[in-house]
Amino acid sequence: MKSIRTIDVADLEDIAIGGAILGTGGGGDPYIGKLMAQQAIRRHGKVRLVDVDDFDDDALVAPVCMMGAPTVMTEKLPQGEEIVIALRKLEKFLGRKVDAVLCGEAGGLNSTTPFVAAAAADLPLVDGDGMGRAFPELQMTTFGMHGVSATPMVLSDDKGNSVVLETISNRWTERLARSCTVDMGGSALLAFYPMSGAVAKKAVVRGTLSLCADLGRKLREARARHDDPVEAIRAALGAEIIFNGRVQDVLRRTIGGFARGEAQIEGLDGDRGHKMRIAFQNEFLIAERDGQTLVTTPDMITLLEAETGAPVTADAVRYGIRVVALAYPCADQWRTPEGLDLVGPRYFGYDLDFRPFVANAMR
Amino acid sequence: MKSIRTIDVADLEDIAIGGAILGTGGGGDPYIGKLMAQQAIRRHGKVRLVDVDDFDDDALVAPVCMMGAPTVMTEKLPQGEEIVIALRKLEKFLGRKVDAVLCGEAGGLNSTTPFVAAAAADLPLVDGDGMGRAFPELQMTTFGMHGVSATPMVLSDDKGNSVVLETISNRWTERLARSCTVDMGGSALLAFYPMSGAVAKKAVVRGTLSLCADLGRKLREARARHDDPVEAIRAALGAEIIFNGRVQDVLRRTIGGFARGEAQIEGLDGDRGHKMRIAFQNEFLIAERDGQTLVTTPDMITLLEAETGAPVTADAVRYGIRVVALAYPCADQWRTPEGLDLVGPRYFGYDLDFRPFVANAMR
Repeated sequence: MKSIRTIDVADLEDIAIGGAILGTGGGGDPYIGKLMAQQAIRRHGKVRLVDVDDFDDDALVAPVCMMGAPTVMTEKLPQGEEIVIALRKLEKFLGRKVDAVLCGEAGGLNSTTPFVAAAAADLPLVDGDGMGRAFPELQMTTFGMHGVSATPMVLSDDKGNSVVLETISNRWTERLARSCTVDMGGSALLAFYPMSGAVAKKAVVRGTLSLCADLGRKLREARARHDDPVEAIRAALGAEIIFNGRVQDVLRRTIGGFARGEAQIEGLDGDRGHKMRIAFQNEFLIAERDGQTLVTTPDMITLLEAETGAPVTADAVRYGIRVVALAYPCADQWRTPEGLDLVGPRYFGYDLDFRPFVANAMR
Repeated sequence: MKSIRTIDVADLEDIAIGGAILGTGGGGDPYIGKLMAQQAIRRHGKVRLVDVDDFDDDALVAPVCMMGAPTVMTEKLPQGEEIVIALRKLEKFLGRKVDAVLCGEAGGLNSTTPFVAAAAADLPLVDGDGMGRAFPELQMTTFGMHGVSATPMVLSDDKGNSVVLETISNRWTERLARSCTVDMGGSALLAFYPMSGAVAKKAVVRGTLSLCADLGRKLREARARHDDPVEAIRAALGAEIIFNGRVQDVLRRTIGGFARGEAQIEGLDGDRGHKMRIAFQNEFLIAERDGQTLVTTPDMITLLEAETGAPVTADAVRYGIRVVALAYPCADQWRTPEGLDLVGPRYFGYDLDFRPFVANAMR
């Protein structure tokens, strides 16, 4: 099997930042994810990033990720190696070896956790994921849209506890896994959605990890050249800048393992005199400009620090920071009726229809 | 293997009532348990009750039970057959067949649920259990006292969801299993504490199911002869009547899957002018007479309806009913330092030392 590329310690800097950009406010802290993956690569060796099309149809592919509220994760640094325990226990339960690891979601943390599993288990890592972004619940994957059951699924914690779930639906998996994660201290490592190579070829959002690396690299290079880092990311994503401003107010609560809330942003420069409200549930889900809905989930809302271009997670949004909001279309699979049932605004309790965001439609 | 006796549909009437007596207020509703077990025996055939000494040391014995708050169970009649799913999934996980089923706790419900598993899986049932009574948490077993891990453990629900737990301690098992049980609608069927025949011979409280059948039969016969049913049970248990009275007040809350509270009883007959307070957490744990502690967990407190001798569960205690309180010693294993660590008054948050109750010491 030919590798798209080999990922070394230095590449993880770019991937974690790129993951945080695609994480649209969620998907965990990029710093922690990067440290975990770098440590695993130093210990076990580089990771081969491969194309899903290079696998036999009967290969066994297993996504891995961390579950939990990002607010908790930053207080409790995971060791990382529990993810290999989860993977090995899934193999034991299925009675066969996994042929490749897959990324569950793009996010600062979960774009990097699969590298821990791939390095430690010496397995190739598929260049793709199950969301093309981050989402707060584990049934919200393109894998599930293609009929893949999230179970058998293994959750492992840093203390040595493990849980295997077998459920009648991915919503039930989310419910049980969420409770176990809360019990386990707020975060757990998962191996789940085991699928064949044939199914993976249909279900995976392609190229996500390459895109993460590309976004991180472009941000780094723009800074090195003293170019505008926000513009570098905007151009790489084909995104539109929907707001420039300063964070005025943030409401935030942790409920049932989720960080929920909303941020109010006061306009600056061309947006002076205007306001933006961004609602989040781990991820940024809705952007309103002066009370008018501008972008809704599953389309993508990314906040960047205006000066540095660094992605701002929902967890890190705070009073006074200067931000630029970008919006851009989600993966095409989410814009189907099946996709919108799983991740559209109504699923999250907003009385809104999805209207596809078209970047730069006004220009 | 020779059977102690064969259990048929009619025997379940006695066993369920006897289980509710030993359940000391907990262990579930005897009516539901009886119906489930009778239905299973009608469908699959009689159950062989066997002595644990008749098993090879390397036999595999697995306890089964229902977990959940009795208040929930009476609203949601379990199908019963999920317990076989739990047992089969445990076998699959262990990679070997179970040779016998074992009772987890004596109680109205859980003295009968093992009959469902034994009948449906065509397995012998050991005459014994892991408590000699009922207790509210799953680490509170003589199995655990003898070093048996509660995991691998399977929880199954009536919808088709299953969970396999592997934990670092039985306290962790309780924590994770409790959350899963709440998610599953308040009750779940369990197969857990898998152990060898050699360990079972040490860890099992002997003869519990025979004792249940005996207590139920004696109550039934006393009623048929118009003898005093309370006296029949008192004599069979070697218990002491510690109070005669009428329930005056009951405080009850369901917290985290437990029915907690206390009952105040106003004395009648020889106890007129006195009061008894009984604290419970699913089971009756502490009996105080006029503010003086008389009996503490793990010693046994059973409430009977004064007229009929029918056991009264903590869940069914209500204003105005006429009751007799019995007290009698628990299984010897619980009266050790290890036993009291697991189920003594301090574990339940009472600032009391255990003082062994001696029945009829005053006579």
